[in-house]
This record gives sequence, C-alpha cells and structure tokens, in this order.
Amino acid sequence: MTAAHGDTGLLAPGWAGSAAASATSDEAYLRALLDAEAALTRAQAALGLAPAEAAEAVTEAAGSDGFDVRSLAERARAGGNPVIPLVADLTKAVGEAYGPYVHRGATSQDIMDTATMLVAARTLDLLLADLGRTAQALSRLAAEHRDTALPGRTLTQHAVPTTFGLKAAGWRSLVLDARDRVTAVRASLPVQLGGAAGTLAAFGAYGAGDPTALPVAYARELGLQAPDLPWHALRTPVADLAGCLAFTAGALGKMAADVLTLSRTEIAEVAEGSGGGSSAMPHKSNPVRSTLIASAARRAPQLAATLYGSLAAEDERPAGAWHAEWEPLRDLLRLAGGAARDAAELAEGLRVRPEAMREHLDLTDGLIVSERLAAELAPVLGRARAKELLTRLAAQGRPLAEAPELADVDLDPTHYTGSAGALTDRALERR
Amino acid sequence: MTAAHGDTGLLAPGWAGSAAASATSDEAYLRALLDAEAALTRAQAALGLAPAEAAEAVTEAAGSDGFDVRSLAERARAGGNPVIPLVADLTKAVGEAYGPYVHRGATSQDIMDTATMLVAARTLDLLLADLGRTAQALSRLAAEHRDTALPGRTLTQHAVPTTFGLKAAGWRSLVLDARDRVTAVRASLPVQLGGAAGTLAAFGAYGAGDPTALPVAYARELGLQAPDLPWHALRTPVADLAGCLAFTAGALGKMAADVLTLSRTEIAEVAEGSGGGSSAMPHKSNPVRSTLIASAARRAPQLAATLYGSLAAEDERPAGAWHAEWEPLRDLLRLAGGAARDAAELAEGLRVRPEAMREHLDLTDGLIVSERLAAELAPVLGRARAKELLTRLAAQGRPLAEAPELADVDLDPTHYTGSAGALTDRALERR
Amino acid sequence: MTAAHGDTGLLAPGWAGSAAASATSDEAYLRALLDAEAALTRAQAALGLAPAEAAEAVTEAAGSDGFDVRSLAERARAGGNPVIPLVADLTKAVGEAYGPYVHRGATSQDIMDTATMLVAARTLDLLLADLGRTAQALSRLAAEHRDTALPGRTLTQHAVPTTFGLKAAGWRSLVLDARDRVTAVRASLPVQLGGAAGTLAAFGAYGAGDPTALPVAYARELGLQAPDLPWHALRTPVADLAGCLAFTAGALGKMAADVLTLSRTEIAEVAEGSGGGSSAMPHKSNPVRSTLIASAARRAPQLAATLYGSLAAEDERPAGAWHAEWEPLRDLLRLAGGAARDAAELAEGLRVRPEAMREHLDLTDGLIVSERLAAELAPVLGRARAKELLTRLAAQGRPLAEAPELADVDLDPTHYTGSAGALTDRALERR
Amino acid sequence: MTAAHGDTGLLAPGWAGSAAASATSDEAYLRALLDAEAALTRAQAALGLAPAEAAEAVTEAAGSDGFDVRSLAERARAGGNPVIPLVADLTKAVGEAYGPYVHRGATSQDIMDTATMLVAARTLDLLLADLGRTAQALSRLAAEHRDTALPGRTLTQHAVPTTFGLKAAGWRSLVLDARDRVTAVRASLPVQLGGAAGTLAAFGAYGAGDPTALPVAYARELGLQAPDLPWHALRTPVADLAGCLAFTAGALGKMAADVLTLSRTEIAEVAEGSGGGSSAMPHKSNPVRSTLIASAARRAPQLAATLYGSLAAEDERPAGAWHAEWEPLRDLLRLAGGAARDAAELAEGLRVRPEAMREHLDLTDGLIVSERLAAELAPVLGRARAKELLTRLAAQGRPLAEAPELADVDLDPTHYTGSAGALTDRALERR
Repeated sequence: MTAAHGDTGLLAPGWAGSAAASATSDEAYLRALLDAEAALTRAQAALGLAPAEAAEAVTEAAGSDGFDVRSLAERARAGGNPVIPLVADLTKAVGEAYGPYVHRGATSQDIMDTATMLVAARTLDLLLADLGRTAQALSRLAAEHRDTALPGRTLTQHAVPTTFGLKAAGWRSLVLDARDRVTAVRASLPVQLGGAAGTLAAFGAYGAGDPTALPVAYARELGLQAPDLPWHALRTPVADLAGCLAFTAGALGKMAADVLTLSRTEIAEVAEGSGGGSSAMPHKSNPVRSTLIASAARRAPQLAATLYGSLAAEDERPAGAWHAEWEPLRDLLRLAGGAARDAAELAEGLRVRPEAMREHLDLTDGLIVSERLAAELAPVLGRARAKELLTRLAAQGRPLAEAPELADVDLDPTHYTGSAGALTDRALERR
Repeated sequence: MTAAHGDTGLLAPGWAGSAAASATSDEAYLRALLDAEAALTRAQAALGLAPAEAAEAVTEAAGSDGFDVRSLAERARAGGNPVIPLVADLTKAVGEAYGPYVHRGATSQDIMDTATMLVAARTLDLLLADLGRTAQALSRLAAEHRDTALPGRTLTQHAVPTTFGLKAAGWRSLVLDARDRVTAVRASLPVQLGGAAGTLAAFGAYGAGDPTALPVAYARELGLQAPDLPWHALRTPVADLAGCLAFTAGALGKMAADVLTLSRTEIAEVAEGSGGGSSAMPHKSNPVRSTLIASAARRAPQLAATLYGSLAAEDERPAGAWHAEWEPLRDLLRLAGGAARDAAELAEGLRVRPEAMREHLDLTDGLIVSERLAAELAPVLGRARAKELLTRLAAQGRPLAEAPELADVDLDPTHYTGSAGALTDRALERR
Repeated sequence: MTAAHGDTGLLAPGWAGSAAASATSDEAYLRALLDAEAALTRAQAALGLAPAEAAEAVTEAAGSDGFDVRSLAERARAGGNPVIPLVADLTKAVGEAYGPYVHRGATSQDIMDTATMLVAARTLDLLLADLGRTAQALSRLAAEHRDTALPGRTLTQHAVPTTFGLKAAGWRSLVLDARDRVTAVRASLPVQLGGAAGTLAAFGAYGAGDPTALPVAYARELGLQAPDLPWHALRTPVADLAGCLAFTAGALGKMAADVLTLSRTEIAEVAEGSGGGSSAMPHKSNPVRSTLIASAARRAPQLAATLYGSLAAEDERPAGAWHAEWEPLRDLLRLAGGAARDAAELAEGLRVRPEAMREHLDLTDGLIVSERLAAELAPVLGRARAKELLTRLAAQGRPLAEAPELADVDLDPTHYTGSAGALTDRALERR
Repeated sequence: MTAAHGDTGLLAPGWAGSAAASATSDEAYLRALLDAEAALTRAQAALGLAPAEAAEAVTEAAGSDGFDVRSLAERARAGGNPVIPLVADLTKAVGEAYGPYVHRGATSQDIMDTATMLVAARTLDLLLADLGRTAQALSRLAAEHRDTALPGRTLTQHAVPTTFGLKAAGWRSLVLDARDRVTAVRASLPVQLGGAAGTLAAFGAYGAGDPTALPVAYARELGLQAPDLPWHALRTPVADLAGCLAFTAGALGKMAADVLTLSRTEIAEVAEGSGGGSSAMPHKSNPVRSTLIASAARRAPQLAATLYGSLAAEDERPAGAWHAEWEPLRDLLRLAGGAARDAAELAEGLRVRPEAMREHLDLTDGLIVSERLAAELAPVLGRARAKELLTRLAAQGRPLAEAPELADVDLDPTHYTGSAGALTDRALERR
C-alpha cells in the first residue's frame, strides 16, 4: 500500500485482470506512444528523409522499458498531454546524434492519436476473440435447446411460449452484430499524421518532396490505415469506436439482463456456471458474471455520449474536446473487453434447467396459450365472442383445461412455439 | 391558443417547420402506424391467408384521415402504447366483415416498431438530401478557397497557417462520413413481425403453413428489409439509428463550431449568409444557423445514449427500455434533420473574407511560421540553439522580420501552407 | 389528421394527458412568455418608469388568446428564439400609444428564461402534489404491512427476510427526498432580467435611476425570486432543476423497478391496481404504470446531463448551450410530472399479496435464514465449522429443518426480520 | 514499465498528481475499506457487543499497509466486489482470537458504501479548499476590475459593453454556488449499515438488543452521519454527490469557456499565468488550465447521468446498478477535484489586459452602444424611426461618431456599462 503503486482495478471487478485491462493500462499506452514515435522516424527513413541509423536508434531507445509512467503523467500537466515530456525523455535516450530525428515534423496529437488507435486495435482484437467464444457457446446452447419450451415474457408477464433455443439464438445474433460492427471499425483505424495544424507543412520544411506520402508510409509501419485527411479535428475514428463499443456492451447486456431474470430464486430456469459468494450468507450463489456485464452496459452509453460530443471540435485542435476523449475511450475499451470476457464465461458455463421451464409453462393454468385459443375459436364463435369467453375464463382463475368449452382444443403449451425452431435454425446459419 | 392545439416547435427553432418536423410529427407516426396495419393485412392476403377484399378494406380504412391523434394519445395510457386504441378504432372503421383481419396475429410492438422504421426511413431520405446539398456547397467553397490561407488554430492559439479550402474539405469529409453511415443504416431498416413473443405462432394458428414467409411479404409491402429474427428485444436497428444520427449531429456540429469561432466580432473571417436579428440591438447579425446546429450537437449524444442503453432489454419485450426509445429516437431524427437543413443553408450562404484571414496571419508578427524557422534553422544552428533563438525572439515581442538572424528566411505565412492544397484536392475526389 | 394539429403525446403515454403535459405545452410556454412581457411593463410602471396605462394596455393585450403558436414557432427560426416574433406581435396588439413600452429595455433571454421559470414553477407545484399523494399512499402501505415478511433479495437471489413495510418505507423515503429537493428548488426559482448583456444598462437609458430595483419589482409581479445577478450565462437555476428532476424520476424509478420485479408471473407478490391490456393476449394484465415510470427513469439522467453540460456557457450569452436547454428541460418536467402521476396511482392502487410473500420465504428450504444460523452456531461450533456445516447442508438440497444439527434452532423466516419494524416506524415519523 | 505498476494518470493531466488523485487512488479506497472495517468492530465494542481487545486487534491489523491492492482487485472478480477478499485477508491478519469479530454482521455493501463515503468526504474537503482559493482570487479580480469595460458578447457578437469585474463576479457566484452545494452534501454523507438485506438482523443474532443503535455508533466512529434507513437500494447520497460534482465541474467550466474565448490570439484580453508549451511550435502559449477544466466539464455530466440512473435499483441490492456507481463516482471526484486545482491556479494567475478590452470596444465603430442610442432617440424620433435610423447607419459601415444625427449623443462605450459596478459590488458581498 505504498504510494508508488497505481490503480489496478480495485473498483472494477468487471475488467480487472482481463486481457483488455493489460492492453489498455497506462503502460500499454506508453508502449503505444513509443511505438508511434519509433514508427514515425522509420517512416521518414523509408522515404529517405532520415538516415536508417536514426530509425534504428529511435526504435531501439523506444523499445526500452526505462520510461517512467508516473513522472510522465505528472509532467503532462504543464502542456496538457503526455507526449511533450515523452519526446523530451526519448530524445535524451536516443542521444545527441539522432535525437533530432525524434518526433520530427510531428505534433503531439499525431502521436497521441496514433497511439490511441494502436491501443484500440490491440484491444479490439482481444475483444473479437471473446465475442467469437461467446458466439460459439451460444450456438451450442441454441442448437441443444432448439425445442426446449419456456414462457415468453413481455412486460414481466407470461405471454405465449417460446423456446430457449430461440432466446440463445437471439443473444448470438446480437453478439454477431457486435462482432460485425467491431470488425469493420477495427479494419478502418487510421494513423494520425498532420503536423502542427494538419497541413503536413513541417515535413516539407524538413525536406519531403511530397509530404502526403508520409502518412502512407507511417500507416505501413504500424499496420493501420492511412487516412484521407489528418483528422485532428475530424473525429470519425473515435466516434466509430464509441458506437461499436457501446453497441457491444449493450448487446452483451441483453444476454446478462435475461440471465439475471431467469436466475431469480423464484424462476431459476438458468444458473451461472459458478456463481459468486457472499460475505454474509453461506448459501448464496450470485449471478456475478451477468451482474458485471449489466454494470458495463449501464455505463457504456454515457461514455460513448462524451465521445460523440467531441465531434463538435472547434479549430484545428480543440481546447477540451480532444482531451475529453482519452479516458472515456479507454473506459469503453475496458468495459467492452471485460464484458466480453465475462460473456464468454457466462455462455460457456450456463446451466439450463428445462424442467423448471416446463413447469412454469403451467403457471398460468393454460392462459399462456390464450392467443392460440383466440385464433382457433374466432372462426367458430366470432372474434368478439371468442375474446369474451377467454376473458371470462381467465377471470375465473381455474385451469383452462377444465373449461368444457375448450374440450377439443390443444392446450399443451409446448405445442405452441410457432416458428421458434425454424427461426433458430435460420439464425444459426449466419456465420 | 385554444387547448385543441398541440406542440409545433415553439421551443425548437432548430427543427420547427422543417421537412424532418413534418416527417416525424404525431400525425406522421399515426400515418405510419396505419400504413403498417394495412400492409400487414395485405401481406397476409398476398400469401393467401386473408381475402383480397379484406386487404382492400383495411387499406382503404387506414387511408382515411379521420383518426384522432389526441384521443389515441390519451387512450394509449391504459395499455402503455398507442397501437391498442388504434387497432380498436381501425377495426371499427373497417367494419364487421373484414374487421377481424385487422392486426391479425400481430402484437402492438410489431406495428409500433414497423411504423418507427417507416418514419425513420422517410426522415433519413430527407436528411440525406440535405447532407447532399451541404456537401456540394462545401465542395464549391473548398475548391474556390483552395489556396486561401488563414491561421491554423490549436487550443485557441495561432499555430501555423492552413487554408480555408482544407477547412471546408474537412467539413465536407465529415458530411460524407455522415452520409455514408446514414445511407448504410437507411438500407438496413427492417420491418418488425413476430407476434406476441416473437415466435410467429399466431400466424400459424391463423393458418399460415410457413409463418416465416410473412415477414418477407410484409417487408415487400413496405419497402423495408425482412429481418433474420423478430427484434422485439434485439434492438440493433434502433442502436444503429442512434449511432448514425448522433454522428450526423456531431459532424455538422464541427462545421458550426468553426463558423461560430470564425464569425466572432474580432475574427470575422466568415459570416453567415443572413444572420439573425436581436430583440434589443438593431446592429446585431448573429450566426443563428450555426448556433442552432451547435445546439443540436450538444443534445444528440445524450439522446443516443438512452437508445444504446435500451439494448440491454430483458425478456421478449422489456418493461421500460422499449418505451424509453420512442421520444428520443424522434428527437434525434428531428435534431439531425433540422441541423442538416441549417447546415445546407449555412454552407450555401457562407460569406468568406479572405482579406481578414490574410490580415490575421500577421497578428503574431511572424511567429505563425516559427515551426518552419525551427525546421530550417535546425540544420544550421542545431535543434536546441534554433529553438533557443526562436524562443528569445518570440519573447521580445518584435516582428520576426526585423530580426537580423532571420534575414534570409521566407517568413511569408501564405508560403507555409504545406500540403493543404494537395490534401484538399484529394479530399474533393471522394464522391 | 390535418396538418394544423401539433404533437399531443402519441409517443408518450407516460405524460400524455397529464397535468404536467398541459403545464408545459407550447401554449403554456406562450402564456408564460406573455405573462413575462406583461409583468415587465407592470414592474416598470410600479417604479414610475412607464405610465400605468401602458402596464394596463400590455397586460390586457398579453391576456388575449389570439397569438398563433405555430406561426411564432416558424418565425422563431430567423433569430433563433420565439421572443423576437412575439414582441413584434404583442407590440402590434398593444397599439401605437403603448407599444413602445412592450419589452422595453429587455433582451429575448430575459423573457425566455423568466417564462421558463414560470412554467417550471407551475409544473413543480403539480409535481409536488403528486409526490404528496404518493408518499401518503406509501405511508399507509408501510404501516399496514409493517410486519409482512417477504424474501429480501440481493443480486436477484434470496438473501434474508425483510418486510414489505420496510420496502414501502424505503420507497417513501426516496419520495420525500425528491419532495425536499424539488421544494427547495421551487422556492429558489428566479426571474431573469439583465438586458442585452446583463448590465441592466438599457433600463438606465430609459430613465431608471437605480436599474437594480427593477429585477426586484419584476420578481414581485411574478411571484418568483429576484436573483443576485442576471444569470444569462450563470445557469444555476437550470442545473438545479435538472438535478431535482432527474432525482425525482430516479427515486420513483426505484419503486417501479421493485414493482416490476415483484409483479413477475412467477413472483406475483404485488400487482398493479389495474393492469394494462394487450393487443394480442386477452389474459394479460401488464404493470403499465411501473413500466412507464421505469421508462422515464431511463431517460431523465441523460436529459439532465445535457442541462448540466450547458453550465459551461461562453460569453454573456452562449451560442448553442442556452438553446440546448429548452426542450430537455421541458422533457424533464414532463417525464417527472408524468411519472409522479403514475406513481401516485401505482401506490394508491397497489395490491399486496402477503400469502405469496410467505410462501416464497420457504423456497430455499430454510437457507434464507442461514445467516442467523451462522451467527447462532458460531459461538457453539466456531465460525469456520459453522460455515462449513451450513455450506454442506445447503449443498444437500434438503430442507434445513430436517437436519438434526439444527433441531434446536428457530428456523422460522418470519422471526428473522431484524429491526425491520423499528426502522419502518422511525422512517414513518418523517414528515 | 514493468507489469507491477498500475495507472497513475497518464491519460489524465487534469487530475494526475493532484490531491484529489491521491485521495481517490485504489490505495485510498483500500485505506477507507480498512477504516470502515475497523470502525465497525469498534462500534460493536462501544455498544458492548464485542470485547475491547477485538476492536483494538482489528484496528491495529487494519492499520497495516501490508494488503495487496492488485491481488484484491483480481480476487474481487469472483464475488463481484473487493470486500469479500479483503475480509478474508483482514480476518487472517487479525488472527484466530479476534478474527471472528471482523465484519461481523455486515454485508459487503455496508463496507463498500461506507468506504466510498469516507473517500468522498476526504476528497470534498480538498475540493472545498480549492473552491475557496478560487473564489478569493476571483474576488480580487472582480474588485480590481470593477470598472474595466470590455465588450459584452452574445451569440459570439459584440452586444453592449460590460465590465470585467462583473464577469469575474459572475464566475465567483458560480464557484460559491458550487461551494454551497458541495458543503451541503459533504455534511450529509452517511455511513451504511444494514447487514445482508438492510434489516440489521444479524446484529440481533449476534446479541444486540437494539441493533438500530449500531449505525449511530458506527457514524460516530467515522465522523459521518447516521442514516434514517439503510440505503443499499435507496441511493440518495450517491445521487446528491453526482449532482454537486457535475455542478462544480460545469460551474468551473463557465470560467474556463470564457478564458478560452478571451485568450484567443485575436482577442487576447486575458492570458493564463503560465501557458502550456507545444511539442512543435516554440512560440505557443496555450491556455492549458482552461483546456483541462473544459475537458472535465464535458465529461462530468455523463458520469453524473450514470449515477442518477442507478437510483432505479431493484430489490434490496441491485445486480449491476450498484456496481456501475463505483468508477463513475471516483471519476467525478477526480475530475471536479482536478478542475478545482486548475481553477485556483487559473484565477490566481490570470493576466488581464484592460487596454485590449478598451480597444475592442471600438471595433464596431460605435454600434456597441446602439441600444443606448435606440433608447435615447426613441423619445425624440419615435421608436420605429429611431430603429430605422440606426439600422441605416449600421449598414453604412462608417463610425457612428461621424453621423451628424448623433452629434449630441454620448457614444463612449465605457459610459454605457449600466449597473455593472453596482451588481459587482452586491455580488461581492456574498460570503
């Protein structure tokens, strides 16, 4: 508990210790900042604007783990971003000969934004892997329970029967929607390179014949995309990340919301593979994975809102809107990444209790198929009288099976799952 | 001022009277709800599940303008949505013979969601037209001012020169990003059809051999897409709308933020075509279009957050999350639609004052090209000494042109716009 | 369905037709704008700055219902606010003699903000009445069920017993917290009066010896407070409204969340007095009041966020932040007002089913009192062995009552409600 | 850059290294959690429910700095909160004799919430100190510049003159509003103590005659308030913190927004005491303090929204809403705390340039006093003709002073600051 330690997620069981946590730590950002600086010098060397030795020297110095994150964080205060002190430290580490090639022609935002995209790319790859695991586990669940009937619930009340297969297929379709949106954004992440006001002018001053070649070379070094224009104040990449990450948290939140409901003591149709304990009650087994996913889903939209809000950025670099992006974007990467880890574990470990589902189908004494009865009686009695009859029977509180008027109707709720099976099959065809 | 009137945008100069306002009024929603009901009966007729006469009767009744919005709004309160009273009114209007074919097999959410998608589709089409106008006007501005230099500003301070062409090209690239996102979402908007709990069971009860054919026929009637699964509780379409609309408002907000800054009395490098007056000061000409766009950009992200938050929807129909979507989605359509109208007018009417821009380039007495000087002096003096020299000269507060050390350097700021022209050209190639 | 109608709440069953809806309609705002203009002339007359006849003439003209909201809404577009066209219309209505006394010395924002405070004051009074009804109904429920035991639930699982009385007392305490916050804000709502840039200069130009007397006289006319400073760009009153309204929606949302859970078909410990019907299923009785309250609670925080965001308002009147307040503040007033109406009905009509509660206390076969057992066995067996024993018994899945080790322990869950009764009594003492 | 380090604010120059950062670190929370546990045992001892030796033993063990934050963070994942592993570690550290008195009768949330209130209390005290410094510096600025005239600006355009004194007095009034709101919330912060489901039952099982005495004793130990009811699911304290912290960030954001505008290169009426440097441009002096405050003001409202959203918490402990509070509340404490630090430095160091202000008053060639002219000419020419005349003169683009019609009117803008001085004086009387 000495002052030298930083935050490691004590308030964040949803992402502490996850791969996304490591990929988004202060140290991961520092690594990405250094990677961005080194790649910049290499890109200049690749275009003949810097000696190969400079590229090597900067790359080597940037590869060191001798930079002091805490010191950088505190020195960032003066200029408002950590690149300024980092350039000072890196230049010193590179030494007199090639120090001048560090950060040459760039502005802090070039490095900060590029590093952010690197961190995002690395974290999205991890996220996609966990979404893949989740989708696969849900495929298995949906197929296995293709015909397991349970009550469909609307506005908290039993409506008509559905199947657990269709439910799981629905969760999976949201996970695949998230995967598709994240994959598209992942593929589009650009480097940032524009110099002081986005004109690439300094690179010309340093000798580049066609400075617009530089972002292309830079992108090549880092495995990111080359943007059409410097995007210092055109924040499409950040807004796109906001959108796909808020989507992911929400999509996983749907599954969590359902598991929380179905896990309730009175319902108990599913249970998490290994529930969480309690500090006070020895018997409790809490749906902790779902709880933490639900928590992420509650927070992500407002973080995304801050990022969408930063689109309205004045000038060639805004005074506040840009700075307001850094922590919320990291938070979103962590929340979505942590939620995906929890979702994979949840889906892989979920215990399903078909017998509880079957039992609940009888809770309304047959009313769960009243829609069917209305449909079948309407041609016989007319729509209005059919509805009247059912309303009357419903009000009596006796099992519908005992009503003589319904003697010939199939009241078995498991026979009234409609196209649930066909829909599940079709949904599972999506890859 | 009688009680019979409803709200028409008194608090919303940003969208009052716009095409988006008409396309999203209560009456437009009512129209879409009726269209959705009529199409449902027609789709059933198309599949042989209802007589052609029923389809005609429902379509005709639904085409009437005799439904009372206010009454529906108030009667919606009992069941929590307006479809329930509307079905009653429409059934009555259709008459005894074909009334039973109204809403047959559907649930309120089928109609409400489908109508919402219809309203969205119609409004997005209008929005896209205004984004197109805006982009075109910005193309013209960017081309015309390809080489008009002005101060690049970062963190509110002059940085290095840029061009107004590049600025306008950047605004345009955001508008095109918005257009692309809106277009993709527009093309994906699905009908909703699942019945009480999303299994299509009632359609089977009413005789459909393959109920999954029904959403396809339904989509065909309405010019929307057929979804893989009923999405009562899988809210991808709403989240996608949230994302593209928040993006659009923010993207236009960037242009507005810049115009507001450049319009300031002290800067006056641009002016809105026709500024707004004041109730107190005869001389004022306010940048009202930008103000209203900026206002929309401030509100949209939080509205989108509510919609992203509704992804985490429990059960087959959630108790609250769904209902929380209706107004915010309409608000977003209005705000984005109104902002696009204002953006088109703003871009088409913007007055640019190159002479003011040129004048401001000299405000820092040459320091605006200090980056260039640093680059050019570094090879001669060494990086550190060059920086020292410039810092010293900057502190003296005299024009750099008078410094004997800089006698041979090109201090003309209009010569230091880097690749602004080339970047503008490339950006304008995007269609 | 003619174009002449405006919106009347078709998408908003939560507030359509409510007192808050009437108090916040476009027409109510127009009324408040006219009241604000009339009071301004009267205040000037009261200080001898205008003839009494002018005050009478303006008051009379402003009392007319001949102003056209839709026309004002559309003409508001040019200057960005509805006061500008309203002043024109009102001046004309007053006539040549006293027309010059309309709006004299004021700026649009003086009138717009003052009208907004009037609307807020009127709506908060209605809201407070409904909060009072709700609190009273909850007092009755809490007292009546002071000793009605039911399962306490944490993270969706049965924890230890609690009482319905304590639950209702908790809901009430939140309602009283909301009442206290709303009451304080209600009492603080100020008029706005500063003139073009908040210096009151024009009033001096029109002859006032001490213009600072004018806001005091103005506040007296309207029954609002006189502010220390014009608050054109010091938005404390709006932020305070945001806070107390988001609080209210959330506080009522707690009760709604609990009722939604306790109403679930499988739990059914409570039911709304009159549930909502379904368009598809004759038997359904949905918790509609809770659903609509829950929907309001989901939206209010993000609306409040927009208002808090407007605190950071540049200059003497900001270009966007002010305009962004109008609709969200009205939305909050409506959502909170509508939710309070629903909460009052919900609390007054709630049906409680003690027998269902009692039954559920046995669902865990005694484990619901495992905490008590742990406490009582610990002194006998030691803490670790006691926990071990209970964990073993819990895992066996047999009723604890059958375990010979627990033969002497009181396993009756209704005997383990701790201080629930005492806490309820104390909470009900709060007035 | 070893894996052992945690985050120390690399992405957060706004709060890195601040007192608020230390007061809200993972280690500060751990300290507060341990303080909460120790106080709980002491409170039980004070009521005779535990031996004094147990209180001493737990207090001593809890005082150690040997607990491993990172390990706790990772073990928190199983049960979803850090208290569970902490109780295990602390019990072990206390040893066999008194270990059973650790956490006795409490639930994790009792400790977590109490620790959160401790952290909040400690951070708010720091925040209040910085608000005090800020207010004092602003008093000085307002007094010193009581009569320094500058252009009042509305919708970015010069309106009428105001004074810098009134501007600073306005900033101060917001700071005092923030102080008052924070002070009230600070004084109300309660301990949490309810046991598993908020009934205090376990304390009875452990022998307490009147368990409701325990929260009172607990509050006494910690210097916090005793709540009326356990507030596990009644989240008033957290919502109140959200409100006052979002208010504070926004209030400071107003000053920052103004400084950013007034610092623009073209305006330069104020400058930060020591501006921030640039990695690319030697001459730049950026308004970094304002930028970082503005960034905080952009983020705080959405964080507060998440916290207001958690009011709607189901059951006796919600599955997600509670967990969603932890990080956003800390973020708010940090953002407001960091912004207050920056605001104090900003206000204390602000350089004001009255000569630039004076110069700008002439930018509109007299039109800045057109309101006065309208007022003075109206009695002579009639309101309509006066307005006409001024509009014509304004359109001519010549200095008003040259217009013969205005020969006898006082056009000096510094003579038209209205009651700015009197308002400033009155505002400064507030303590």
